[in-house]
Amino acid sequence: MRIALDVMGGDYAPDEIIKGAIEAKPLLETDDRLILIGNQGMIESGLQGNNCPLQDFDIVDAPENIGMDESPVDALRKKRKSSIAVMAKMASHQETDAVISAGNTGACVAAFQLRMRTLEGVVRPGIAVVLPTLGGPVTMCDVGANVACKPINLYQYAVMASVYSERVLGVKNPRIAVMSIGEEDTKGNELVKKTRQLLKSDSKLNFIGNLEGRDIFDGVADVVVCEGFVGNVILKLTEGLVNMIFKAIKQELLASSMKLALEFKPILTEIYKKYDYHEYGGAPLLGINGTALICHGTSKSRTIRNAIMASKKFHSMRINEQIMEYLSTTTVKPNGDATENPL
Amino acid sequence: MRIALDVMGGDYAPDEIIKGAIEAKPLLETDDRLILIGNQGMIESGLQGNNCPLQDFDIVDAPENIGMDESPVDALRKKRKSSIAVMAKMASHQETDAVISAGNTGACVAAFQLRMRTLEGVVRPGIAVVLPTLGGPVTMCDVGANVACKPINLYQYAVMASVYSERVLGVKNPRIAVMSIGEEDTKGNELVKKTRQLLKSDSKLNFIGNLEGRDIFDGVADVVVCEGFVGNVILKLTEGLVNMIFKAIKQELLASSMKLALEFKPILTEIYKKYDYHEYGGAPLLGINGTALICHGTSKSRTIRNAIMASKKFHSMRINEQIMEYLSTTTVKPNGDATENPL
Repeated sequence: MRIALDVMGGDYAPDEIIKGAIEAKPLLETDDRLILIGNQGMIESGLQGNNCPLQDFDIVDAPENIGMDESPVDALRKKRKSSIAVMAKMASHQETDAVISAGNTGACVAAFQLRMRTLEGVVRPGIAVVLPTLGGPVTMCDVGANVACKPINLYQYAVMASVYSERVLGVKNPRIAVMSIGEEDTKGNELVKKTRQLLKSDSKLNFIGNLEGRDIFDGVADVVVCEGFVGNVILKLTEGLVNMIFKAIKQELLASSMKLALEFKPILTEIYKKYDYHEYGGAPLLGINGTALICHGTSKSRTIRNAIMASKKFHSMRINEQIMEYLSTTTVKPNGDATENPL
Repeated sequence: MRIALDVMGGDYAPDEIIKGAIEAKPLLETDDRLILIGNQGMIESGLQGNNCPLQDFDIVDAPENIGMDESPVDALRKKRKSSIAVMAKMASHQETDAVISAGNTGACVAAFQLRMRTLEGVVRPGIAVVLPTLGGPVTMCDVGANVACKPINLYQYAVMASVYSERVLGVKNPRIAVMSIGEEDTKGNELVKKTRQLLKSDSKLNFIGNLEGRDIFDGVADVVVCEGFVGNVILKLTEGLVNMIFKAIKQELLASSMKLALEFKPILTEIYKKYDYHEYGGAPLLGINGTALICHGTSKSRTIRNAIMASKKFHSMRINEQIMEYLSTTTVKPNGDATENPL
């Protein structure tokens, strides 16, 4: 399998990305190839700095770089030699089997969608993240690919995330919920209400109804669908709140007793590790015609290594084939009758 | 001041609501009156059970009850003698100066809006909650009154929450942010982008730009505006996540050492208290022509007591007068020119 890695994307690029590639290398099979895409000079000196032979990797020069804060569409138009643009183009020419980036999320989504296209039957791709909870892993989709969702998008996110949850995470018959602001049928906005109709009309899905924000971490559902704006807020809020609570605990401990603070530190570290979603290594862009993983901008080598391994799993599990098969048989079509006008 | 309290609303009604009223009583001034609205028999036996003389309160019988899960509009239409309906009607007849309920939020918003009407110049009311953070209290509006927000609504929420933050919380020149999915101007959905235009066009507001989910708890902004769906998800997610983390810490501590768990318990309790938003006692429904506080469904006596005191503060601070004054002078009008078509 050929796995392309954007070496220039992310807050710790290129160093941590290169390290992640080096860490993944011994875990790969002999016929796997890692393709490092980015500034060739930087990649070569990065590998040499880690005493790593250049021939262990394929290197593709992409001299331009898209910043984390650039407008995705503008950046892609202007920077055709950026790592993201080059990577997406390679994928479209069947020169790689997977693409991985911790760079500008919007640019990744736009480039992958434009070049790789969506899977047959899929209207819009969605980013799925796995949130570790006390009740097991919860797959949430979308978390930022699509901020103008239609009911058909959310329906398809449910289908795709359900396939992902079942195959990749091993969850049997995943319980699907739609993020809303009350458990009752009548609660929510128009998008939620119409999405519910679509999900209910498909008896093959294990749809359990609305989910409230407070229940995400309770293990009530395995798959949660929401529009990208809401999902992105949830994801980042979770990060910020966890950090705040741990900071508050630290402050309170230090103010109370240094001894207690030291005793408690390993326990906090343990919890942090257990609920650290970086462990899952990159969020798949579901619905794209290929294997594409988008990593958090703050990814360090461990996340990149895990993302490389996750891309192998995604590919070998034939997730895309199953998504297409499901969508080819469902009666809920983009222009079907399941709802008045789902698009 | 006459303060009406819905004795039937909330998960712990009527007992905890009655207790909250009894706890607030000694804190009130001599010419304040607490009006308890609900099932008269229950109220009387609740007061007697707490050895409290009936004449300490005004009691208004409202024999019907709206459940927490009922459809607000249906319930209000059918149950005209419910505590929420009776309370709203009293307010509309100037028979009370403030209304407080921990009952069905949707029913409260609908009843108060219908009976009390909005303030002059306000298009839609919004619920504001105060989130305690490491950087001080953050006022977020809306958290569930309006799930189909327009830019003008978010603009007015910014104005109203800013007045509230300044007057009630003592924040000088509150920094206002709009909840989005990236800090850059280009990030967000259409609602966010149009709202930014309105907020930028008003130089009297201290508008600082977009805020991401992760920054809410960082003390970057004092006021955060978002549509009710997003705000409600944020609020409930915060609750759920805090509970999950504290549960996880408890599990980890118990698995590690009972001694450590006992040592750590008072510190957790301290943190919980410090960041407990129940302390603020009810969320004001900003933009309504009167003083209306909506409490969390899980409110116990302390929250109710705090809400009663908060209603006095809201009333005496003349928040509504200042909101109306501000809106009468701003150039951003519901059908003005500040944006193409804000409504």
